[in-house]
Amino acid sequence: MSKLPLHEADSRLKKVQRAIAGMQADACIITSSVNQYWLCGFIFDGYLFLLPEGDPILFVKRPSNIVDERVKQIRKPEQIPAMLEEAGIAIPKRILIEADQLSFSAATRLQTAFKMPEIKNVSGELRKIRSVKSEYELEQMRESAGIHSKVYKLIPSLYCEGMTDLELQIEIERQMRLHGSMGIFRSFGENMDIFMGSMLAGDNAQVASPYDYALGGAGISPLLPLGANGTILRPGTTLMVDMAGNYRPCMDDMTRTFVIGYAPDIAYKAHQVSIDIHKAILGDFKAGTLCSALYLLAEEMVKENGLEPYFMGTVQQAKFIGHGVGLEINEPPVLTPRSEEVLEPGMAFALEPKFVLPGIGAVGIENTYIVHESGFENITLCEEALVTLS
Amino acid sequence: MSKLPLHEADSRLKKVQRAIAGMQADACIITSSVNQYWLCGFIFDGYLFLLPEGDPILFVKRPSNIVDERVKQIRKPEQIPAMLEEAGIAIPKRILIEADQLSFSAATRLQTAFKMPEIKNVSGELRKIRSVKSEYELEQMRESAGIHSKVYKLIPSLYCEGMTDLELQIEIERQMRLHGSMGIFRSFGENMDIFMGSMLAGDNAQVASPYDYALGGAGISPLLPLGANGTILRPGTTLMVDMAGNYRPCMDDMTRTFVIGYAPDIAYKAHQVSIDIHKAILGDFKAGTLCSALYLLAEEMVKENGLEPYFMGTVQQAKFIGHGVGLEINEPPVLTPRSEEVLEPGMAFALEPKFVLPGIGAVGIENTYIVHESGFENITLCEEALVTLS
Repeated sequence: MSKLPLHEADSRLKKVQRAIAGMQADACIITSSVNQYWLCGFIFDGYLFLLPEGDPILFVKRPSNIVDERVKQIRKPEQIPAMLEEAGIAIPKRILIEADQLSFSAATRLQTAFKMPEIKNVSGELRKIRSVKSEYELEQMRESAGIHSKVYKLIPSLYCEGMTDLELQIEIERQMRLHGSMGIFRSFGENMDIFMGSMLAGDNAQVASPYDYALGGAGISPLLPLGANGTILRPGTTLMVDMAGNYRPCMDDMTRTFVIGYAPDIAYKAHQVSIDIHKAILGDFKAGTLCSALYLLAEEMVKENGLEPYFMGTVQQAKFIGHGVGLEINEPPVLTPRSEEVLEPGMAFALEPKFVLPGIGAVGIENTYIVHESGFENITLCEEALVTLS
Repeated sequence: MSKLPLHEADSRLKKVQRAIAGMQADACIITSSVNQYWLCGFIFDGYLFLLPEGDPILFVKRPSNIVDERVKQIRKPEQIPAMLEEAGIAIPKRILIEADQLSFSAATRLQTAFKMPEIKNVSGELRKIRSVKSEYELEQMRESAGIHSKVYKLIPSLYCEGMTDLELQIEIERQMRLHGSMGIFRSFGENMDIFMGSMLAGDNAQVASPYDYALGGAGISPLLPLGANGTILRPGTTLMVDMAGNYRPCMDDMTRTFVIGYAPDIAYKAHQVSIDIHKAILGDFKAGTLCSALYLLAEEMVKENGLEPYFMGTVQQAKFIGHGVGLEINEPPVLTPRSEEVLEPGMAFALEPKFVLPGIGAVGIENTYIVHESGFENITLCEEALVTLS
């Protein structure tokens, strides 16, 4: 059932087992889809039980027919301790759980079932481990980015005069699906909904949203206040396209900006500053740099160009210019002014210095970079200049 | 900002406040998007703070510019107790939280911020309250179902010979979006992912999935093992279409089945049994009936027709034939053989007796019914017979 190469699965497991030992825990229980997939190559309704060494045990509620000798079928978590004892495994006294993802109810139920062990949160540690990718994962990201570029190149041919942002988005969504996008993509954190990505046309780019993405937008439903809102694509305005790069389990992230006809000079100028920030960061940095250094360099260039009021929003300004990306769209590290994280070889991050210009729209680009000892590798190879839709 | 009619918002608030009093709690803190929307008409990143009486207070992290006199802007939950004291409100000693949705980390952080009050779970109670809909909500569901039918009627015109389930699904998704679907739809519970719905062609309908939906399917990614998997739509097989009815915040749910060319007689027979179960349930029951009675009647008819091995799956069989529907796709009540829930006027439920026929595919229909004193109202008015695709 698993399509994960054995050496890949083994290396991931070993990293988590080192973390279990490092956190002086007796066991770790994985319940989130993302981390189950990351460790097993498939998803199930149940509990992935890890000890500091040895094979994992998969306590599975559903599906009922996984062919895998590590699987033990259960109906409820209360059965697990007796099954462990039968297998000669002591009931753990200190257990790591994904406390940032697992609900309070499910976590306390698990704790009660295990006779009240100490519970520690492993969510952050797993995210940290996952932030350094293997060559297998990086190759998935390069493949995803290649398809992402192909889809973006179709955008001018999908555009018709008088279209709304949403109508164009729907045609892009269709092309994404035809090119293999699985549809949903995952973000970390509570209340972080998104549907296939975000398109921001004209002043909708100024609308503040409840989510922790770089920009907002009103959306078309109060149940999902984000992105396209039905704005007609008018000459003189811009359209920022930040649709998902979920063509492989490990994703890329890329934004490109389009101009309807011609836009005022400031749009081209601010867009060029975004491109220049990318160039400066590519020129100046490599593995070993502090994430904050990237933010501070970008901020300096923004100030030199007098663009602070438009940087990362107007009404509400995001305080980061990039983020790690992988199985989830928002992984560590985060590029903030005070981040103490250091870029390590194998990390992959999206850099998205963006501007929102009142009366015009959002401009700027986002690329995904892989961190190497010698510098950053751009995997999102796609025209960076403002592309005209006409 | 809220588009929720005032009397609607007020009536919902009053119901929750009665629950707070009934559970002898001092306050209730709402953090999920669904319940924030249900009570306020919009979503925010923050804490909706409710007392047993009086106006709610919205402690909001993001967006930063909500125009609503009930809003107090915060950076973190630790600020809330001091702000309550300033407003002359005692720090609550027993707090209701949505423990089935809120993460263990977030819940314990909140508990610490409030100086360790007793925490009680209000998730189930809120779901119970929401299961009885207002006329405003029921009208949204009728409107959604009307659009749902329109989209399903287009399916024969979207079909081309030699298509895969996924290719047809992509064209349906596009029509759904053009007809106003907001894209994502919400399901309750952990690890319950879905993308716009499910299409099951031929033997893919037999594939067991980890999710708690009526049927499974392999999907196209190990990260989302559900629904269409690229099966070519071959003559002699069936295609079951169970795409989302999310054209309004309060949704409907509907399944229709298509035949590619002609299918063996058993397909038509089993499909008719599904329709007959709907008719029998419509004829026999009304408000006041036990949910289990619906299941037991269906089961009896399945047995009479010798279709038990195919009922609700083969390899893995679901143990319910229907479920409430509303802001989430899986609301109470659940129609199981041992359910002690009673159908009340204003409830809305999807009834989906389905069969999976090896070598052919899934058959059966799903309708959404509103419960009235006098009987059930079918809101999913759309051809029920097997429709031929050719």
